Amino acid sequence: MTKHPRDNTTGKVEDWWRTDIIDMKPGEIRYRGYAIEELIGNVGFAEMIWLMMRGELPAKGQAELLEIALMSAVDHGPQAPGIAIARMAATCGVGLNNALASGINALGDVHGGAGEQAVDLYNAIRADMNNEDDLDLIVERVLDSFFSAGNKYVPGFGHRFHPVDPRAPRLLELVDRAADAGQVTGEYAAIGRTIEASLERLKGRRIPMNIDGATAVIYAELGFPAPLARGLFCLSRSVGILAHAWEQTQQGGRNKGPIPRDMKWTYTGHPPRKLPD
Amino acid sequence: MTKHPRDNTTGKVEDWWRTDIIDMKPGEIRYRGYAIEELIGNVGFAEMIWLMMRGELPAKGQAELLEIALMSAVDHGPQAPGIAIARMAATCGVGLNNALASGINALGDVHGGAGEQAVDLYNAIRADMNNEDDLDLIVERVLDSFFSAGNKYVPGFGHRFHPVDPRAPRLLELVDRAADAGQVTGEYAAIGRTIEASLERLKGRRIPMNIDGATAVIYAELGFPAPLARGLFCLSRSVGILAHAWEQTQQGGRNKGPIPRDMKWTYTGHPPRKLPD
Amino acid sequence: MTKHPRDNTTGKVEDWWRTDIIDMKPGEIRYRGYAIEELIGNVGFAEMIWLMMRGELPAKGQAELLEIALMSAVDHGPQAPGIAIARMAATCGVGLNNALASGINALGDVHGGAGEQAVDLYNAIRADMNNEDDLDLIVERVLDSFFSAGNKYVPGFGHRFHPVDPRAPRLLELVDRAADAGQVTGEYAAIGRTIEASLERLKGRRIPMNIDGATAVIYAELGFPAPLARGLFCLSRSVGILAHAWEQTQQGGRNKGPIPRDMKWTYTGHPPRKLPD
Amino acid sequence: MTKHPRDNTTGKVEDWWRTDIIDMKPGEIRYRGYAIEELIGNVGFAEMIWLMMRGELPAKGQAELLEIALMSAVDHGPQAPGIAIARMAATCGVGLNNALASGINALGDVHGGAGEQAVDLYNAIRADMNNEDDLDLIVERVLDSFFSAGNKYVPGFGHRFHPVDPRAPRLLELVDRAADAGQVTGEYAAIGRTIEASLERLKGRRIPMNIDGATAVIYAELGFPAPLARGLFCLSRSVGILAHAWEQTQQGGRNKGPIPRDMKWTYTGHPPRKLPD
Repeated sequence: MTKHPRDNTTGKVEDWWRTDIIDMKPGEIRYRGYAIEELIGNVGFAEMIWLMMRGELPAKGQAELLEIALMSAVDHGPQAPGIAIARMAATCGVGLNNALASGINALGDVHGGAGEQAVDLYNAIRADMNNEDDLDLIVERVLDSFFSAGNKYVPGFGHRFHPVDPRAPRLLELVDRAADAGQVTGEYAAIGRTIEASLERLKGRRIPMNIDGATAVIYAELGFPAPLARGLFCLSRSVGILAHAWEQTQQGGRNKGPIPRDMKWTYTGHPPRKLPD
Repeated sequence: MTKHPRDNTTGKVEDWWRTDIIDMKPGEIRYRGYAIEELIGNVGFAEMIWLMMRGELPAKGQAELLEIALMSAVDHGPQAPGIAIARMAATCGVGLNNALASGINALGDVHGGAGEQAVDLYNAIRADMNNEDDLDLIVERVLDSFFSAGNKYVPGFGHRFHPVDPRAPRLLELVDRAADAGQVTGEYAAIGRTIEASLERLKGRRIPMNIDGATAVIYAELGFPAPLARGLFCLSRSVGILAHAWEQTQQGGRNKGPIPRDMKWTYTGHPPRKLPD
Repeated sequence: MTKHPRDNTTGKVEDWWRTDIIDMKPGEIRYRGYAIEELIGNVGFAEMIWLMMRGELPAKGQAELLEIALMSAVDHGPQAPGIAIARMAATCGVGLNNALASGINALGDVHGGAGEQAVDLYNAIRADMNNEDDLDLIVERVLDSFFSAGNKYVPGFGHRFHPVDPRAPRLLELVDRAADAGQVTGEYAAIGRTIEASLERLKGRRIPMNIDGATAVIYAELGFPAPLARGLFCLSRSVGILAHAWEQTQQGGRNKGPIPRDMKWTYTGHPPRKLPD
Repeated sequence: MTKHPRDNTTGKVEDWWRTDIIDMKPGEIRYRGYAIEELIGNVGFAEMIWLMMRGELPAKGQAELLEIALMSAVDHGPQAPGIAIARMAATCGVGLNNALASGINALGDVHGGAGEQAVDLYNAIRADMNNEDDLDLIVERVLDSFFSAGNKYVPGFGHRFHPVDPRAPRLLELVDRAADAGQVTGEYAAIGRTIEASLERLKGRRIPMNIDGATAVIYAELGFPAPLARGLFCLSRSVGILAHAWEQTQQGGRNKGPIPRDMKWTYTGHPPRKLPD
């Protein structure tokens, strides 16, 4: 593929918007070289997502694992801010696209970033594995320096609500199956499990892998760069955000606030006062 | 399911956020009654989307058609404002979730609403079909009143760039196949084709069905309410928006403007002047 | 100013982004013809807002009224969805700009559109005033056809929470003062008051003007087109949204949901079930 | 004011949404203790912004400087991504609030963060000034460690387009005037100027203070915490974003892309290919 200077000093306006993803002529659309009419009906949604992000079609087992990760994280209920935001927005007289965007917009470092951070952590451990150390030792070293740096929570492990997140063991089971079938290496599943075991030794209690840790295992096994773990989570959670925005639309309501209408917040500020003269 | 008064006069805070979609207990998550660990690995992404929006699992043929519609509309290149917006946002120091949200936010009545409007139009025609008239006559009557009301464009038909949108005939072919297999009725495909034929007679030239018209046929065949045609399009286009935001991230750039850096807009306003005294 | 064809058939890339608002050369920035270094220190924020929207500087009395409208609507507390959304977003690991955008995004037809709709209503009445009818009669006629069309609420009148919105009478008092000083005509204040009186006769109880009705009087007196009533409200409410997002940032919290963490929503959906075989 | 535990273990739903900013009773609204009907007409927009963010009313000179900073940064033309995004969104069939939100959403670390980063830098220098060193020495030391840490650009200094940003010297002149009048200390103006001088020695050419550096001087002189420098910039730039979205609405267009309709992006990806069997 042609190399372009970073800041488009080619001077051509068209080059300012260059892309490897899509080409068009009148009557013709190609994604990564494939004609759309050939893709339609022959390539599934998860395969299309892979093709768009990665540039090549996935193997069948890869597409299946990606699809599993995507379907597993669609929703965590109206207490999740992304969901609540979309439900409230849906009562404010905006389109479903706007309600959806408002919810996705909140999937930031804290609400949507754990998967990305977990992939980063796994990759840091994976990079050390070439030095032939024992995996337990490597993980302990990485966790040590992680906690020494002032971090409190290991991304992808522990859950405020679920003692064991029911999604994680099921997802790992399916990664194992794919590893047995030679579709992935299983290295990241091993890394994830070693972190869990190491954390238990370190903290004296089990802090089990959660949905973010488990989908991060899948995304890392599949070779996605860390930031796309967040991106793919956004695609996944969009489904729940849309479902809730639509349910709220049907329930009705206008300008839905966070708590029932007859309740008011607690005011903790300055007592009533007059303007100074 | 329990009926609730519209404005939550139950007084219970928990009822203010009532939902049919998801239930949770510590260690347990159920969507529409199904446990997540059972869904994972047994239900595909398109089936999960259907379950979340509709409340029940789809038949296999229905899920296949939904998946086809979703994968067919992921991207239309950087000239589409939703894509361009996300690419520019991705250079501004925000997260991928924010870039994605900015793109989706633009999929409004004009950019993302054609599918929704097409489903509405199809449904208006479908409602008249119970009166046993000839479909050609019904369509002509509906189009007549559509144009008389001052509308200029029939949503889902015609394309600025493609003489024939390569996605539409392929999508209709797959609807026909599903109708032959008894998975859908094929009524909406017939309505769509009749609109196309009617438009050609009315305008004296072919104005072929486009992607929005064709996916609207699928969504209507599958029984989705019109607003979800927009919602599902947003899920679909999210894929392209994310792929482009990510490609732009890799290309680099800071504060990417719409045209190359060394170009400037044309100023058409008041000539230089001094402030009045 | 040069006229340009609607769809930029000039062919020049620079013309695609033509504007009357701002011109730049290296070392020089002009808004509406005025050099920025002259504007700074000589023109207030409200005057600058007027200049940007309208193309000319306002008279002193006009700028004062605009400033009053802008400062009067900054906040209505955390039960307003726009405020709650921004506070929740601020705990999700996004920037203040993203939290602010999420809140503003919700100021749609229902949450932020009453002022725009009120200006439209006032203008419909104002247009009829040229026919020399009595204002009471005109208002009654317009309200009659408004209710006959199926509308239930008159935009800008009545309030769920406040029996009398304390902002409205104070704002009208200041419009009266400006009318007495010849800075505005006072016609829209008269229209607003006549609507209030007419509504009381029609409904048998007082439905007093609220903040949206009162700021709409100001925006209409100042000649702003109706859509800018919403736009200016967004500028105003941005202040409250930012203040709350910032307060929430300081209060801390991660992934703040709408109700306290230990509470859960009411599930009203399908009872637990197994996947079909 | 009452202290609340961080995570609302008071158990009261109302406390979950506690705030120091606003209190309401039916018919009564108070901001920071002041009744709205007293504020209206007596307190300007900039003073209201200060009150909302800071909790107390500003002195007159403080309000004037804040107003100057807010009015000085409203717009930098359609090549700025925030402006271009809003103009494109305005043609997509969404509300002005949505177009505005899309633009503001892009004011991230790169597009909207320079002011915040400059305040942080100034404060780092200011903190060292208590150690009685010469300001030149302190600044050089801080810049040294700033560049050693791999940073390339000093936030608030230098401009891609303007050899000298015409806003900066004018803003500094007004800060000097306020310092002479005893309204601010002038320490941050001194810090900013010392950075400029130091940079010139270090780099061998002048890299003059820009708008972000100059407004950061003002925000720091006024005691705003660094993140609010970004927040206040968002309020300021909102004005330009709204003005451009509105101008675009009047110019018309549907689904405005970044470059004229008859142009296409450069495709740099895989050549046409067939699906593998």
